[in-house]
Amino acid sequence: MKIGGKAYRTIWLGEDGWSVVVIDQTKLPFSFETARLSTVGETAGAIRHMTVRGAPLIGATAAYGVALALRADAADPALEQALALLGATRPTAVNLHWALARMRARLIGVAVAERAAAAYAEAAAICDEDVALCRAIGEHGLGLIRSLAAGKPAGERINILTHCNAGWLATVDWGTALAPIYLAHDVGLAVHVWVDETRPRNQGAALTAYELGAHGVPHTVIADNAGGHLMQQGEVDMVIVGTDRTTATGDVANKIGTYLKALAARDNGVPFYVALPSPTIDWSLRDGLSDIPIEERSAREVTHLWGLGEDGQPGSFQVTAPGSVAANPAFDVTPARLVTGLVTERGVAPASFEGLSRLFPELAQERAK
Amino acid sequence: MKIGGKAYRTIWLGEDGWSVVVIDQTKLPFSFETARLSTVGETAGAIRHMTVRGAPLIGATAAYGVALALRADAADPALEQALALLGATRPTAVNLHWALARMRARLIGVAVAERAAAAYAEAAAICDEDVALCRAIGEHGLGLIRSLAAGKPAGERINILTHCNAGWLATVDWGTALAPIYLAHDVGLAVHVWVDETRPRNQGAALTAYELGAHGVPHTVIADNAGGHLMQQGEVDMVIVGTDRTTATGDVANKIGTYLKALAARDNGVPFYVALPSPTIDWSLRDGLSDIPIEERSAREVTHLWGLGEDGQPGSFQVTAPGSVAANPAFDVTPARLVTGLVTERGVAPASFEGLSRLFPELAQERAK
Repeated sequence: MKIGGKAYRTIWLGEDGWSVVVIDQTKLPFSFETARLSTVGETAGAIRHMTVRGAPLIGATAAYGVALALRADAADPALEQALALLGATRPTAVNLHWALARMRARLIGVAVAERAAAAYAEAAAICDEDVALCRAIGEHGLGLIRSLAAGKPAGERINILTHCNAGWLATVDWGTALAPIYLAHDVGLAVHVWVDETRPRNQGAALTAYELGAHGVPHTVIADNAGGHLMQQGEVDMVIVGTDRTTATGDVANKIGTYLKALAARDNGVPFYVALPSPTIDWSLRDGLSDIPIEERSAREVTHLWGLGEDGQPGSFQVTAPGSVAANPAFDVTPARLVTGLVTERGVAPASFEGLSRLFPELAQERAK
Repeated sequence: MKIGGKAYRTIWLGEDGWSVVVIDQTKLPFSFETARLSTVGETAGAIRHMTVRGAPLIGATAAYGVALALRADAADPALEQALALLGATRPTAVNLHWALARMRARLIGVAVAERAAAAYAEAAAICDEDVALCRAIGEHGLGLIRSLAAGKPAGERINILTHCNAGWLATVDWGTALAPIYLAHDVGLAVHVWVDETRPRNQGAALTAYELGAHGVPHTVIADNAGGHLMQQGEVDMVIVGTDRTTATGDVANKIGTYLKALAARDNGVPFYVALPSPTIDWSLRDGLSDIPIEERSAREVTHLWGLGEDGQPGSFQVTAPGSVAANPAFDVTPARLVTGLVTERGVAPASFEGLSRLFPELAQERAK
């Protein structure tokens, strides 16, 4: 998507043709900087320290990390060492391990002299495929937005609420939940986005607001508390969010607070959609509430925030009463009964096993074996 | 309630017997400081700059402001001037105008020489009555907590979620929603409070957490997003909140985000109570969603937070992407259908006109005239 009128992906090859450039997301939203990765060690560090974040982008970055490693030494031990180093950066990231397994499978049978070139090609393919997947999600979601627009007076804005960041910064381009919004904006529909700030880490206020603003999409940041009231007032036409994991039955684990918005959407007759690439479906799970473990993160994310001080310097500051403890469950589960539809790369499915398996019969069958 | 083992109200007479001392709430939670008010001008400033806040405490402070004015000059013009000065501090605060009207009615017929003493006595009476009202709410709410405790294995903690600050810092003592919790704690029930941080102004993280901690009540601060997940996990036995205005039919206007917690409570079978002194019932209103105007506050409360920097100095910090606009509706309306009961000074009523008028027949009748 665009920043200041210029099209970007979140990861690309440098002008030298071999180093890897990423947007340094630790500096956002207060400063746009890029970081150049020249070694597998720098790549592992960039993933570990969240210079890059978002599951699809982590996978793509790791793939390029393998290419950088092989450029220095393409022998088997170096390949295995690179895979191990990168695999240890974010142990729970599904896409990371998927990307590394794919790189290994592609490269292990290739002659050493040709491995680096093959690795670069495979990493580029992973990136391009992610872009195509997100774009397809966007096209199917665009259909939903077009339908909403058709039900309104011409030119009246279409208000879409989103939670957390499921945008292009989390992927290679387009994003998942935000892909339909970018496409709608680009074809001239009058979309306006309510951006939940998404405490405690504020991915909405910092990243979603940044990327929508940079591309020129009208949006308004709100406290996470405000969405229900806006729906009561008829100010929300649709909710769309991403997901970290979806059960085969359509229960959706996503950033903490998603469930509250789904409840408010149901109470006010607002459609609630979840955008997901099919790899985030966990076909082995049937009951999201009992089967999906919820990560408990550091209390400090609640008690301290990161922001820009009056002196123009970013820093950490405490907002809770000294001595008070905090709890920080990072995700919640929205039951399928509250989800209007799942927006996938193959179309919009009802949030149910029947709905998902009709779109992805080969994946549903594979798991049934 | 207690701070460091010592009992406090939020307002009291100084050792000199005439000046008024308040807790400087602009310094909380990072520093406990008191402020001495010696003139009506200082009192008006303390209300305007939120040294004191919370509707009942504002009323009590204004009453003492009248006494301070009359101590300097008790003639009719000085009385009227003081009432006008204090009345202009927070134009929308209902209790402020109620307290000033009461002071005027009590004092206008009193001989000038006796007015200052009568004003001090009336201000003290207003404070004592507020304490009694809150205490009565606490006793009725305590009954609800006792019932919850009776349904649990002995000693197992009773988890109560609250939103914003409806504690003793907003009143003269005890608070409204927190009064039952303090009483339960003081009688030895194992209460534990989930404290919603309550963005954007963070009254939960700053004030509720501070006062619970100072009194020794176990509590945990959470992001506003977390409550639904905690209810799904069976970690919440009861929700209790305050209210700014309640319709005659039991619809409840309270801090933004309250409605989302009420929805989650209903979805998970968790009782949802609202604590309110009867003066917050607006007998003229029937439909909270259409009849209660919702204040839109400054966007800066969303884009910037107040906290303690790494240098130990409090300051303001920007957390949203530069250039992004924000919206800040300050309250929302929870429909009566989601409210399990209204905890008043006369008992617990169903959230309905029938429920409220059974407890307050004279108020319901007065309005019907």
